[in-house]
Amino acid sequence: MGKYNVAIAGATGVVGQKMIEVLEESNIAVDNFYPMASSRSAGKKVTFRGKEYTVEELNEHSFDKDIDFALFSAGGGTSKKFAPIAAKNNVVVIDNSSQWRMDDEVPLVVPEVNPKDALKTKGIIANPNCSTIQAMVVLKPLHDAYKIKRVIYSTYQAVAGSGIKGIKDLEEGVKGGKNEFYPVQIAYNCLPHIDDFTENGYTKEELKMVNETHKILGDYDIKVTATTVRVPVFVGHSESINLEFEKPFDVDEARELLKNAPGVIVKDDISVPEYPTVLDAAGNDEVYVGRIRRDFSVKSGMNLWCVGDNIRKGAASNTVQIAEYLIKENFFGKEN
Amino acid sequence: MGKYNVAIAGATGVVGQKMIEVLEESNIAVDNFYPMASSRSAGKKVTFRGKEYTVEELNEHSFDKDIDFALFSAGGGTSKKFAPIAAKNNVVVIDNSSQWRMDDEVPLVVPEVNPKDALKTKGIIANPNCSTIQAMVVLKPLHDAYKIKRVIYSTYQAVAGSGIKGIKDLEEGVKGGKNEFYPVQIAYNCLPHIDDFTENGYTKEELKMVNETHKILGDYDIKVTATTVRVPVFVGHSESINLEFEKPFDVDEARELLKNAPGVIVKDDISVPEYPTVLDAAGNDEVYVGRIRRDFSVKSGMNLWCVGDNIRKGAASNTVQIAEYLIKENFFGKEN
Repeated sequence: MGKYNVAIAGATGVVGQKMIEVLEESNIAVDNFYPMASSRSAGKKVTFRGKEYTVEELNEHSFDKDIDFALFSAGGGTSKKFAPIAAKNNVVVIDNSSQWRMDDEVPLVVPEVNPKDALKTKGIIANPNCSTIQAMVVLKPLHDAYKIKRVIYSTYQAVAGSGIKGIKDLEEGVKGGKNEFYPVQIAYNCLPHIDDFTENGYTKEELKMVNETHKILGDYDIKVTATTVRVPVFVGHSESINLEFEKPFDVDEARELLKNAPGVIVKDDISVPEYPTVLDAAGNDEVYVGRIRRDFSVKSGMNLWCVGDNIRKGAASNTVQIAEYLIKENFFGKEN
Repeated sequence: MGKYNVAIAGATGVVGQKMIEVLEESNIAVDNFYPMASSRSAGKKVTFRGKEYTVEELNEHSFDKDIDFALFSAGGGTSKKFAPIAAKNNVVVIDNSSQWRMDDEVPLVVPEVNPKDALKTKGIIANPNCSTIQAMVVLKPLHDAYKIKRVIYSTYQAVAGSGIKGIKDLEEGVKGGKNEFYPVQIAYNCLPHIDDFTENGYTKEELKMVNETHKILGDYDIKVTATTVRVPVFVGHSESINLEFEKPFDVDEARELLKNAPGVIVKDDISVPEYPTVLDAAGNDEVYVGRIRRDFSVKSGMNLWCVGDNIRKGAASNTVQIAEYLIKENFFGKEN
């Protein structure tokens, strides 16, 4: 089995630290490990598989070294600047920012859904938006079976998605402190506002869900709309998803389908009653789904509730899974 | 102006106490005031307009007295038993439980929407479900203008809707304590579970939203579905509402319509950005609406976000407003 030289750009952030943790847990044999971050965080220490590393400053020469792949979670601007430099140096960048997601040249990959797209990379692979990833894992098997006509997302998103600043606002807020990051109090409140607003009245987060659903499922005929909402939860996104299918379906059959789908755990028994919440998802890479039921308001409609760890499956774990897939497919030419 | 003898059944609960407060603020001239509760709470003291009252035990003889109207918030079972006794004694019952809402003989009233239905009462008037009330105030003017074909509700409901037990679970939960009321931790979590589950996979809360929307708007052709979710918010429900209209609409015109609608405050300016949250609604009787935008996934579709104080407009204030309407219409025959 080959050994890989791996960089993590943005190694000191919430997602970067989780990338280190998930990579550590993985079966990927790592030869050289390069944690990188902005000058502000360079010099900090991180531990990977029992060994301490000093975080390097991410700069134009960071990728002059022999690196197989780099997991980026350093924000859109940093990714815009450094991912092409890395790619030019034959480093495969798996980028968690929104910078490259809608670029026609860049695959947007959820390994359970469209793994083969990763193999088409010209150097950069984009990790989708956290809310989109967890929805895709659940929607893909349903789309294959019944063909989705329309999706309506309403999300319940955790503050960890905003990084350390979001977490601090909630921690301080429940103690009566003031927000520093969110424009409106997040403690004991729900804000229908994630990322910037755009001219058509949607936030960028909502448009990500619309556009990325199309690209990942490879079907631009699906009608999609979204309302994305920040809620006072630390880790784990929940989503109320309304679906309309082209074909008829049976609820029990759909539930079985999901039980057999990769990366999905069905927790759905109203006789207990049992349904998933972020407590199930936190710390896991699977997406949990429940409340699967017929929507009687439309022909072939369904409502469901899905939950995922936005820092793991919604970010760090998905990037590591993409790397694992590339390794399995011998993309780096190091496997026998 | 006439003076009224008023009873409050369930005067010591979260909603009952708010009923006293809202009645106190109102212009209703109260002659005799009778706070009532179960034997467990009887004997407690409550204050109304500066005077202290002892809470009476609610029993078969409570309504032998001369009472004009009684605001009930004592649970379905209590209402089932005592509301008919009160009605038989010519007391108009305005009941906040779900007991009578779908009874064909009982009007289900939101004063901004279908006030005249209240005049048809045979003794009992039902106050709708909290989530439904705030949605109705917003949907009515839109339905009148564009005729709603389909509604998809996803709610973000506060723990105050579960009464003192719900509030305690959140208070203790954020300090690391255990839930006593909710089956799953509510602190930093979202539970897609409000009221009991029914055989078709929906909760009773979800079915209330479906059925009460039909009855209040007086239109059983509207297709409705709902996912109702408890969130770690103390007071104030938020709702992500997706609408499909029969007629075409203009977003700016719809926003103007809502600005001029009774009981509605529009807070919707993405250039600020500005949108409503429970902080706006808490303590007020108006329903706040924002995030009004076209849903591009369907012909004549709209997404919006609405927020209301579930204890005031969603419960106590709506009952007092019904009483005010009855008085204005001289239903009790005491006005000149």
